[in-house]
Amino acid sequence: MKKPPAKRSGARRQPPTTLAEFVAAVGRFRDDRDWAQFHKPKDLAAAIAIEAAELQERFLWKTDAEVDRDLADAARKAGVAEEIADVVMFAMLLSDRLGIDLAEAIAAKLAANAKKYPVKLARGSARKYTELGGG
Amino acid sequence: MKKPPAKRSGARRQPPTTLAEFVAAVGRFRDDRDWAQFHKPKDLAAAIAIEAAELQERFLWKTDAEVDRDLADAARKAGVAEEIADVVMFAMLLSDRLGIDLAEAIAAKLAANAKKYPVKLARGSARKYTELGGG
Amino acid sequence: MKKPPAKRSGARRQPPTTLAEFVAAVGRFRDDRDWAQFHKPKDLAAAIAIEAAELQERFLWKTDAEVDRDLADAARKAGVAEEIADVVMFAMLLSDRLGIDLAEAIAAKLAANAKKYPVKLARGSARKYTELGGG
Amino acid sequence: MKKPPAKRSGARRQPPTTLAEFVAAVGRFRDDRDWAQFHKPKDLAAAIAIEAAELQERFLWKTDAEVDRDLADAARKAGVAEEIADVVMFAMLLSDRLGIDLAEAIAAKLAANAKKYPVKLARGSARKYTELGGG
Repeated sequence: MKKPPAKRSGARRQPPTTLAEFVAAVGRFRDDRDWAQFHKPKDLAAAIAIEAAELQERFLWKTDAEVDRDLADAARKAGVAEEIADVVMFAMLLSDRLGIDLAEAIAAKLAANAKKYPVKLARGSARKYTELGGG
Repeated sequence: MKKPPAKRSGARRQPPTTLAEFVAAVGRFRDDRDWAQFHKPKDLAAAIAIEAAELQERFLWKTDAEVDRDLADAARKAGVAEEIADVVMFAMLLSDRLGIDLAEAIAAKLAANAKKYPVKLARGSARKYTELGGG
Repeated sequence: MKKPPAKRSGARRQPPTTLAEFVAAVGRFRDDRDWAQFHKPKDLAAAIAIEAAELQERFLWKTDAEVDRDLADAARKAGVAEEIADVVMFAMLLSDRLGIDLAEAIAAKLAANAKKYPVKLARGSARKYTELGGG
Repeated sequence: MKKPPAKRSGARRQPPTTLAEFVAAVGRFRDDRDWAQFHKPKDLAAAIAIEAAELQERFLWKTDAEVDRDLADAARKAGVAEEIADVVMFAMLLSDRLGIDLAEAIAAKLAANAKKYPVKLARGSARKYTELGGG
């Protein structure tokens, strides 16, 4: 009986859906290229900041109205989508590198924020939780 | 026949699993507080950059070895997890604000990167794709 | 008697030396191009962050030893010098826009830091002043 | 004859005026605390980015009009001035660490920008030099 071919990283697979599957897909991309050796936490954090800056650059010197107008253009919107994806992918790589479950971390942060910003006090206010004065 | 209660934002629901469900959960958190009014694209992009900087600050002045040692401490690791979650949550809010499907954007960027960084040329190299010289 | 020609922005002048003269030179560059209209404080702050990220990108994925080796190369060092200059020039433009005397601001911050980080307590320590515990 | 006292770092001196004197003053502050050991280029670049983010945070979620109103308040303006000073001081420390003459770097960048953005083409336009199309 013929042995089934080993699963290869490049093999066709279901596209990712869950957050964990996305983290795994990004990790496979890294491992296929043997890039984990460059992915020190400090560098991954810097990479996130760099991508965030590239995102900001898309909006620089523009009024909010000009930004909205720009984003009606499909090519420009796709460019912004790429920068957002870059930010999230490096965040996924950092989570993976540190053994942090990103889905759990987001769920925990949402729960913590819900306490820091109770709907009653925070509704319609841009103040930081330290200034909400819920006493 | 009794009408079923309207679905409320605060109602118990299944915890999010897919990337899209996380985006939706973060969007509900925003809407419960009526915060969409503050979420201009430029501000959300700035918020991502600010959270990325808070993440970097956790590692500042430390050697890679010191960073690893720090992260063996559960409380410090949880602090880093929070900053990563903040980055991703603001990226989700920006995607949502712009009508960008984040899962699609990441899948598209992974595919584009696979072309820019073919395994054969990129394996084990930290060079930027513009310097890979694949001819 | 012939009127002396009006001083023009492009006219030969002494190169700047004092910090205030540099701020003035950068401001003239802006005014010659009628760019003050784009220089809202939020955009200038974003521009500083973007230039800071371009600076970081020069060092990304490199060990400290590789960074030092790179900087022995004159062209690479000049590239880094440009990014640092960009950061400082946008900081000067923001100061100018806000009517902040940058020389005074730096002198004041140095004095404040001298109190926060007394030589006796801070010597040889990378801890933040909040953790110096000089109590 | 009595020997004059050795010049000490803490000794009274003229306040800095030239850009070079400011760089020297910031360097003395560092050396008095024996901090050069922590000042690797990557960390100094990250520190600049972190301070730039703290500056951005002062303006986050605010409209341009709200920012202007805020800055009419002396305490808030002083807070912004501190963040700008922090950015510039770390840029000075990085220049000093790399043996870059900051005054020269700024003068060179101004000259380069004057070529990239000729007054005739750039006047009143926020476009990047790559899009100025001066043929």
